Amino acid sequence: MGETGRLDKQIAFIIEIDKLKNIYRQSFVTGTEKAENDAEHSWHLALMGILLQEYVPKGAGADLDLLRVLKMVLVHDLVEIDAGDTYCYDEDAARDKRQREEKAASRLFNLLPADQATEFRSLWDEFEGRTTPEALFAAALDRLQPVLLNYQTEGRSWREHGITADQVLRRNELIREGAPALWAYVQKIISEAVEKGYLLP
Amino acid sequence: MGETGRLDKQIAFIIEIDKLKNIYRQSFVTGTEKAENDAEHSWHLALMGILLQEYVPKGAGADLDLLRVLKMVLVHDLVEIDAGDTYCYDEDAARDKRQREEKAASRLFNLLPADQATEFRSLWDEFEGRTTPEALFAAALDRLQPVLLNYQTEGRSWREHGITADQVLRRNELIREGAPALWAYVQKIISEAVEKGYLLP
Repeated sequence: MGETGRLDKQIAFIIEIDKLKNIYRQSFVTGTEKAENDAEHSWHLALMGILLQEYVPKGAGADLDLLRVLKMVLVHDLVEIDAGDTYCYDEDAARDKRQREEKAASRLFNLLPADQATEFRSLWDEFEGRTTPEALFAAALDRLQPVLLNYQTEGRSWREHGITADQVLRRNELIREGAPALWAYVQKIISEAVEKGYLLP
Repeated sequence: MGETGRLDKQIAFIIEIDKLKNIYRQSFVTGTEKAENDAEHSWHLALMGILLQEYVPKGAGADLDLLRVLKMVLVHDLVEIDAGDTYCYDEDAARDKRQREEKAASRLFNLLPADQATEFRSLWDEFEGRTTPEALFAAALDRLQPVLLNYQTEGRSWREHGITADQVLRRNELIREGAPALWAYVQKIISEAVEKGYLLP
């Protein structure tokens, strides 16, 4: 397949992923009645990655590959185009999440030329695996952002689903590993959210 | 100001830029009645940057700094939080665009700690200046993406505004400099759009 075929595949993928803008999450955009979608969320995480990289522990952080962090957060939710957004506190939906997302990854990434399909799959695997400093930081951002939005919207999504502080703490504890200073901040927000009635104790 | 003050500023900025999700553009999301917003657009450009970097001319492209490209496209529309989206074929609005955006840049970026305010301002200046290979590529992506969306939506936004092929060609010609192979592709799309009646000849 020649160069034209390659570009055609890339463009077809770029058009296919326009659908990420229609995958809605449980968070609300500040000051609106609008549920956030995955494309907006992914953009927000990337910006946060640029701004908060200094909170990755030194040693790991000294040579943090920010480019890989950004690629991971930009790519991490693409599988939801087929698999849908699974609410993080929905234990039923969590059961077949992995299977649904595997199938989605296989269909979507294989729209790309082979080398790029491999790169995207490997970025998604790294994100899901949460073992590298980059993946741990990306996961920390992915946890922190909805907490910030929930706090900003007076716990709207937490209240709608009757979520407790314990659930939020358990869900977000992995921020401690990816960026300990941000974990201290999240603990403070969660306490304040309970005090203000945004979140059940 | 201590570390807490620094993180507070960063978080305040992260919450402020949530507003980018409410800045609507003239493009429509494929298969929907939904105008695209700037956050979705910026995410899409970043993904395109990862996928299409090979089309930056060698010499320039051999050592293209993709991280800086991604940072630029993620940051480039933030000024529209205050200045609004200026439709690219609106000559009246173009007159004071620079002034409105300068003011916005000054307010927004200065919410950040000084070093990061300087970095963001410099990324925005580089994007607007269009002299480095990274900025030319970022500008090419910013032109290409609405052409793809317009073609996908049967020229909806072009037809609503009575845009001609000549206008689109003039507007997009700078893709030639940033990524010549993509310019050939855009010229082909524009011809097809005219044939199909999506765009006035």
